[in-house]
Amino acid sequence: MSMRTDYCGELRKENIGQSVEICGWTNRRRDHGGVIFLDMRDKRGIVQVVINPDNNDFALAETIRNEFVLKITGEVIARADNLINPKLDTGEIEIVANKIEILNTSKPVPFQIDAVDTSEEVRLKYRYLDLRTNVMQQRMRLRSKVTHFMREFMDNNDFLDIETPFLTKATPEGARDYLVPSRTYPGEFFALPQSPQLFKQLLMMSGFERYYQIVKCFRDEDLRADRQPEFTQLDVETSFMSEGEIMSMMEEMTRGLFKEVIEVDLGDKFPTITYNDAMSTYGVDRPDMRIPMKLVCVNEIMKGVDFNVFSGPASADDSRVAALKIPGGASISRKDIDKYTKYVSIYGAKGLAYIKLNEEGPASPILKFLGDDVTNQIIEMTDAKTGDIIFFGADKIKIVNEALGNLREQIAKDLDLYTCKWAPIWVIDFPMFDQNEDGSLSAIHHPFTAPSVDAKTLEATAATALSRAYDLVINGSEVGGGSIRIHQVEMQQTVLKLLGISDEEAKDKFGFLLDALEYGCPPHGGMAFGLDRLVMIMTGSDSIRDVIAFPKTQTAACLLTSAPAAVPNKVLRELSVKVSLPEKDS
Amino acid sequence: MSMRTDYCGELRKENIGQSVEICGWTNRRRDHGGVIFLDMRDKRGIVQVVINPDNNDFALAETIRNEFVLKITGEVIARADNLINPKLDTGEIEIVANKIEILNTSKPVPFQIDAVDTSEEVRLKYRYLDLRTNVMQQRMRLRSKVTHFMREFMDNNDFLDIETPFLTKATPEGARDYLVPSRTYPGEFFALPQSPQLFKQLLMMSGFERYYQIVKCFRDEDLRADRQPEFTQLDVETSFMSEGEIMSMMEEMTRGLFKEVIEVDLGDKFPTITYNDAMSTYGVDRPDMRIPMKLVCVNEIMKGVDFNVFSGPASADDSRVAALKIPGGASISRKDIDKYTKYVSIYGAKGLAYIKLNEEGPASPILKFLGDDVTNQIIEMTDAKTGDIIFFGADKIKIVNEALGNLREQIAKDLDLYTCKWAPIWVIDFPMFDQNEDGSLSAIHHPFTAPSVDAKTLEATAATALSRAYDLVINGSEVGGGSIRIHQVEMQQTVLKLLGISDEEAKDKFGFLLDALEYGCPPHGGMAFGLDRLVMIMTGSDSIRDVIAFPKTQTAACLLTSAPAAVPNKVLRELSVKVSLPEKDS
Repeated sequence: MSMRTDYCGELRKENIGQSVEICGWTNRRRDHGGVIFLDMRDKRGIVQVVINPDNNDFALAETIRNEFVLKITGEVIARADNLINPKLDTGEIEIVANKIEILNTSKPVPFQIDAVDTSEEVRLKYRYLDLRTNVMQQRMRLRSKVTHFMREFMDNNDFLDIETPFLTKATPEGARDYLVPSRTYPGEFFALPQSPQLFKQLLMMSGFERYYQIVKCFRDEDLRADRQPEFTQLDVETSFMSEGEIMSMMEEMTRGLFKEVIEVDLGDKFPTITYNDAMSTYGVDRPDMRIPMKLVCVNEIMKGVDFNVFSGPASADDSRVAALKIPGGASISRKDIDKYTKYVSIYGAKGLAYIKLNEEGPASPILKFLGDDVTNQIIEMTDAKTGDIIFFGADKIKIVNEALGNLREQIAKDLDLYTCKWAPIWVIDFPMFDQNEDGSLSAIHHPFTAPSVDAKTLEATAATALSRAYDLVINGSEVGGGSIRIHQVEMQQTVLKLLGISDEEAKDKFGFLLDALEYGCPPHGGMAFGLDRLVMIMTGSDSIRDVIAFPKTQTAACLLTSAPAAVPNKVLRELSVKVSLPEKDS
Repeated sequence: MSMRTDYCGELRKENIGQSVEICGWTNRRRDHGGVIFLDMRDKRGIVQVVINPDNNDFALAETIRNEFVLKITGEVIARADNLINPKLDTGEIEIVANKIEILNTSKPVPFQIDAVDTSEEVRLKYRYLDLRTNVMQQRMRLRSKVTHFMREFMDNNDFLDIETPFLTKATPEGARDYLVPSRTYPGEFFALPQSPQLFKQLLMMSGFERYYQIVKCFRDEDLRADRQPEFTQLDVETSFMSEGEIMSMMEEMTRGLFKEVIEVDLGDKFPTITYNDAMSTYGVDRPDMRIPMKLVCVNEIMKGVDFNVFSGPASADDSRVAALKIPGGASISRKDIDKYTKYVSIYGAKGLAYIKLNEEGPASPILKFLGDDVTNQIIEMTDAKTGDIIFFGADKIKIVNEALGNLREQIAKDLDLYTCKWAPIWVIDFPMFDQNEDGSLSAIHHPFTAPSVDAKTLEATAATALSRAYDLVINGSEVGGGSIRIHQVEMQQTVLKLLGISDEEAKDKFGFLLDALEYGCPPHGGMAFGLDRLVMIMTGSDSIRDVIAFPKTQTAACLLTSAPAAVPNKVLRELSVKVSLPEKDS
């Protein structure tokens, strides 16, 4: 009844003498000395099949081309010593075919399976061929292991897997929603969830205490390299647990995941850094701790220099001057410095001053402005040695941080300055709000994040108040984030007021949540992990598209199915909508 | 750091003398002899807390109302023998409170938690309160166990959990699609998947060989009692396996599931019935095998009777006369027979003839038409005894089958005629096509189902050809279905042609699948289980809404969040659509 007795990739010396049936794809066919050799591939690997000229099916075998699907009946024999292929797990044996069955043919494939130089466009159009490559098979297998481990962990810790709706109401995450017209309520729309945030909070109000879900979320954003319109997160929420307990449990999960799936030890206890420290020392809120270099604040000594480019920002409250020493960086060429100058200009930096510490001593166009004393103090403060370079940022705080923070990462990548392979870190003590130019506030996380102070204090100190949020960063990527949520209606109303959200708007958008807060809502909090990014990091892939079976392009299209597509008017009429194309500029 | 040392529902005699901290909801408060008694509830159960008048927090305790969220510090003591509550797992002990903390208050709840008579409308509006009831907590817990077991099983059998897209192309399942306007491609739309059918086939073409996913699917249908616009299925696909192997593996999964989760033994080997036998013997393609009664074909003896109501259908090719004996049914009242007559009229039956076997002998208005001989033959054929009743259906085959098939189930329910609690059965040998009135064909399953004959034979015998599909039925509900799929492009083209789907339409709708078939598609097949319905059956619930945390109503609305909802024009403009309400009849 079964089509196969064995998998191609599992046959070994121990099987010699056995009669086997295998199924799979023709990875390669070679003809040599009147004999046909096939590399047969299935999901477990590759084995060599030999078809001798006296085989009854030899004529049939001659029609076999790459990617033909075959069933081979044959006998496992040892390879001669000089023909053993040490690169192949099955390299000590081969199969002499008795019977050959062509289960399906294949047209010549548009690209060689496992070729490394295929364009992404072709790979996505023929995704079913691209997924046959060993690297994609391994990535999908690893991704499946990751979700399996997560579910095991959550289940062992008494979390319930509960599904939340996909056809729901616009959520207040801030990105654009994907909308779905309703047929039964003409003129009304569902929104696809940007996250299950409100529902998972409702599940806490429902008394489940521990919830998790691995779930698709949707954001109609302008796509960047590592974004997709639909993405997957591990979503977690708990009641009656402090942020410390939640972080500790999620850390245990993450540590176990890396150990179990990719045999990586992430260390005993992840370090913690405050948002403020992360920003001032690394320039970003997701510091890559594999990189030893830090931003050093040199405001005090720059205040007095006779060089307005430095002394100005050093003296202003909203600005800073920071130094970034790159060990061994004196060898960076003039050309590369120009390249980095251009790079930091993306973040608004107007230049990139530096001091090289050559054998002959410090060298820099700005030495004359700084003088020996200041130069020596800076060398001391940055602990710079001969052969190093010191870069400077002097501007508004935001510009300096973004410019030097990203420069630090770019140079570390270019010069391979990593001191370890894996570096997890928790970022805590985020501000509650971002202050906009006009003085209004917006939420750093989302409006349901709890502040670390009471409602009165929050109102008095909104611009500087901290939240009870936490992000998990690995190798400079935010892989997860969460917070303790607001569980009392008065606090929720205070936060909404501070965000300038009117009672009416709040009631309209998430009145059900405000209602629910009044019926015995427990203290609760949780976290969400971005699964795609996590798997991308774990597999060492360059893009999340490489760890998604059927991804969209950067313009949110599917090259395989040609989605999205036009829809007949009749169908749209049933949904009470019609297409209304934007007018072209005349 | 932790808020609790113990769960309310887990305290036992062994804990007597311990100081504990518990968190949870006030299930009930009683005042008795100056003492306050609280039933404290958490996800593990209920425990009694005693607050004596000398407690420092007594005044605070007096403010406690139902559903307040509390943290209680206290000591576990034994209850006096006469105060032991055997109905409660914690009934041998209680907690004397030392310290009381009100974590949150609650307004009076709109319905008593665990009240049985709350309307579904109120339950759905306040779903977060409804989910606090013990019965809903248990259902969600069981559902989580079900998915966990399924995933374990699939993982143990080397299936990979692979996600397929939600924003995709209209699929050919036949129901209406939910559509999603694309912002980046004005005038174009994604469709939410009715199932991952095409993608799971593409995964087989991608060489994964074993795939599974527990996944949301979407159908914009007119809703019946057990349908939801979004529903969940366990979706499975394999390569190089026969239908027998697939059924056997899925049966093993199902058997294990029932054993593990609800301790039910489904028996060693599920029986199998052909579609034709199911229809002629039980009137439906999803026979409830807990019910012993069968439809008995009495065409031959009715052909000759002098009663056109019977002799007509008995002689016509497209009609039948069938008898359904109900053991003990002679006691069914005239009034109930009228009720059943009305019931079968739903299915088009024009009447409901019967013979009662009373102590005095057969009794029926139709005896005079049949005569003694025929009456006795029928009694013999149906093996009817004194006290039974025999119902008749005589009409077009479809009407008789539906009328008597459903009557059989209704009466079994009314009179509790089940001979066992659980009865799984496989239905096989489905026809490939349904023949429409105009002679055209439509697919019984979907156009990718493989026939059991070759393409030439199929073309010659389309109307009677069988498919390689199989359904799993438990207690009269189809819990899963699947098939071997077409893996060769010629066969796929033949089937599409027979279905009247033009090359152009096929290319437009699923050209990518047809392309993929040409690049070495392996033989493959699979199955999908309706998770909601399966959990409904396992929990003995009446509706799938009872096993979904946040379900939609029968008009596809969410009473909790008030979705769907109107959307600002500005948002619609970005999506290049506008609302176009149907014109009202004037």
